[in-house]
Amino acid sequence: MTIELTTPVSPDALDPRVAVDPARLLDRVERFARIGRNAHGGIDREGFGDADVEARAELVREAHRAGLDVWGDAAGNVLIRRPAAADRAGRRVVLLGSHLDTVSNGGRLDGAYGVMAALEVVQAVAEADADPSHEPVAVAFANEEGARFPQPFWGSKALTGQLDDLPGEPEDNDGVPLRGQLARAGGDLDALDSAAWPPGSISAYLELHVEQGPVLEQAGDRIGVVSGITGRTVLTVDVVGRAGHAGTTPMELRSDPLTAASRIVLAVEDLARGSRLCRVATVGRLQVRPSTPNTIPQGVQLTVDLRDGDPVRLELAEDAVRNAMSVIAGERGVELTVAVDTRSQPARMDEALKQAVADSATELGHPWQVLPSGAGHDAQIVSGVAPVGMIFVPSIGGVSHVPEEDTADADLVAGAEVLLRTALRL
Amino acid sequence: MTIELTTPVSPDALDPRVAVDPARLLDRVERFARIGRNAHGGIDREGFGDADVEARAELVREAHRAGLDVWGDAAGNVLIRRPAAADRAGRRVVLLGSHLDTVSNGGRLDGAYGVMAALEVVQAVAEADADPSHEPVAVAFANEEGARFPQPFWGSKALTGQLDDLPGEPEDNDGVPLRGQLARAGGDLDALDSAAWPPGSISAYLELHVEQGPVLEQAGDRIGVVSGITGRTVLTVDVVGRAGHAGTTPMELRSDPLTAASRIVLAVEDLARGSRLCRVATVGRLQVRPSTPNTIPQGVQLTVDLRDGDPVRLELAEDAVRNAMSVIAGERGVELTVAVDTRSQPARMDEALKQAVADSATELGHPWQVLPSGAGHDAQIVSGVAPVGMIFVPSIGGVSHVPEEDTADADLVAGAEVLLRTALRL
Repeated sequence: MTIELTTPVSPDALDPRVAVDPARLLDRVERFARIGRNAHGGIDREGFGDADVEARAELVREAHRAGLDVWGDAAGNVLIRRPAAADRAGRRVVLLGSHLDTVSNGGRLDGAYGVMAALEVVQAVAEADADPSHEPVAVAFANEEGARFPQPFWGSKALTGQLDDLPGEPEDNDGVPLRGQLARAGGDLDALDSAAWPPGSISAYLELHVEQGPVLEQAGDRIGVVSGITGRTVLTVDVVGRAGHAGTTPMELRSDPLTAASRIVLAVEDLARGSRLCRVATVGRLQVRPSTPNTIPQGVQLTVDLRDGDPVRLELAEDAVRNAMSVIAGERGVELTVAVDTRSQPARMDEALKQAVADSATELGHPWQVLPSGAGHDAQIVSGVAPVGMIFVPSIGGVSHVPEEDTADADLVAGAEVLLRTALRL
Repeated sequence: MTIELTTPVSPDALDPRVAVDPARLLDRVERFARIGRNAHGGIDREGFGDADVEARAELVREAHRAGLDVWGDAAGNVLIRRPAAADRAGRRVVLLGSHLDTVSNGGRLDGAYGVMAALEVVQAVAEADADPSHEPVAVAFANEEGARFPQPFWGSKALTGQLDDLPGEPEDNDGVPLRGQLARAGGDLDALDSAAWPPGSISAYLELHVEQGPVLEQAGDRIGVVSGITGRTVLTVDVVGRAGHAGTTPMELRSDPLTAASRIVLAVEDLARGSRLCRVATVGRLQVRPSTPNTIPQGVQLTVDLRDGDPVRLELAEDAVRNAMSVIAGERGVELTVAVDTRSQPARMDEALKQAVADSATELGHPWQVLPSGAGHDAQIVSGVAPVGMIFVPSIGGVSHVPEEDTADADLVAGAEVLLRTALRL
């Protein structure tokens, strides 16, 4: 399928009656931020948890109040469209959305903002009774983060027919089965196939999201035209040495996994910092056992997170860090085990959609730049079956997945306006 | 007070009737190893816990079975002497002992072996009705490890009148007050002063212990003549950076406390390994928060454990590591906080007692060497009020504070024989 760009702009996009309502958008963002808010001001709205179920119920009510059609699928996705959309059978669909679930103690915008903006676009088109070439459908994908049930991108994988390699009966870290929690959200574990849309039924997917990094803010740009979503390789590394008494074991007889792990942490950083083999490289998780002052550790477990937009560079970086770790283990006399947790391929954004986003930003007078997404998004899943585009707005201080995650109101509104205009110009 | 060495050896020491009973000693060591033994074969006998209380009750029964006098003091120490010892008022006392409590999941010998050997010496002297110049008194000091109630060396501090700077009502990590647990062990928190012996009442203290390190085993020596107990400085270091998304935060905008902490770990190791500023230097505890693969850490807390027999070197090493950490923090743009947890001074062993131990080992045909103790012992507390000597036996594989902690039976017997002969030759 191809996207035909209407340049400079379609009649609908220029129709002043088809417009984002800034107050309505910001009010919804604020109201949804209260669902699952904890004592620290963060949001605990893990996928299929109580707050997530509450949020999707509120989204259904909100769509009804707006006079829109709303339905859920077997995977727990919530979909919203114009009530007369069924009469427009055969019209091509532009899917707009993101997710409502958060990480533990996350922020109010990661996910929910994109869903609210998608709802705003559908409502604006409905209220103006506009006649765009692509019917806009808003989606709140289920369990994008995988914070509680470790199946991230659950909803977008189901909707695009890519939900394979499921464990028999998924459960959360406490052993609670997904089956019942999914049913609470209106889903059905035995009917997941029914959530998959037929091939070719999505003409385009657009996702509006906060950047989650500092690039737009530091450059003074308001809109990010996402070039692609980074590939990611995550390794879990076990370093095993020999525990010993910190006072009685001479230095030359030690086999200390923590000093070896420290060299690994610095080698990982060097991949991206000194050697520039990949864009970013991080050791985020590191656990020492037994971790007492008086004992040389017995073992260290750490994760290596490598990201790059180029799959070849990603492979080379993984090779390099594996080599470096082997050398360190040999020098230090420790045992090394490396397991691959994740190897996700980079996803390219559709060139025509990138152009459409950039044109819309220009027309609306918002400074923009092209930048990669360092984080994962449902868009990378949908890119397996349809052309996708992503729009970023600045993150204040570049932070995300924390209670302080925020974006200026004017930027939130600008992002929704760019989303609307991009959807209309297809 | 002075110790007069009888050289080559006293009549009692040569009296073949005054002898260690190897089978009895090893049987007791084995029986006490069952008290608090867990499913992994380790010993959970934290001071003032159930197993510790059971062990001290069993020690009381064992002393009674041996026909010895036994009593407890207000601090929970258990003391054992010959029944006629009260008639020998004015005779100088050589205190022999160690402790019954263990770390969590510790070994069977650290502490208990020294107590069993001390009991064996008192019993051997009693059974032979010998007439040594110093009356041997065995002691099981309470809560040497401080594994549950964080007041290590509790019993030896109380007995030597050094139990100051107590928090109002000591409690364990779960908030259980020491008061009741001490009472279960026959102690009395309100009468701790009564546990202190009058100044000058201990003529000498001898402690037999497993080495807890690999030096004797690797040298093929059976007896260690301890030269001194290492001084120890423990720092808790907080490194605070800036959390961020591992995928979206460019390397050059990061303030990663884990890469900074990794450099600190290597700098600490270098103190003892490359720069040789102190004997050993260890980061044993290190905790990362939040410690998730997807997030650049916000903070790292770690401990720095420095040990040396020379207080000046210990100070210089602390200065050096503080300087190195400041440089690293400056280069890395992280905040650093350093707190002092422990600054214990090195303790010297008495020269005459060292000679007495060495002479006894030579006479018994056991190869020996002089070595420092890298671990802390009740002996370092008693050294504040009396001459002290320590005897080590080899640790298999050099390990301690783990279930695998072990020593060959022949070495255990040899250590007790050296303890007996040393006590008799005073």
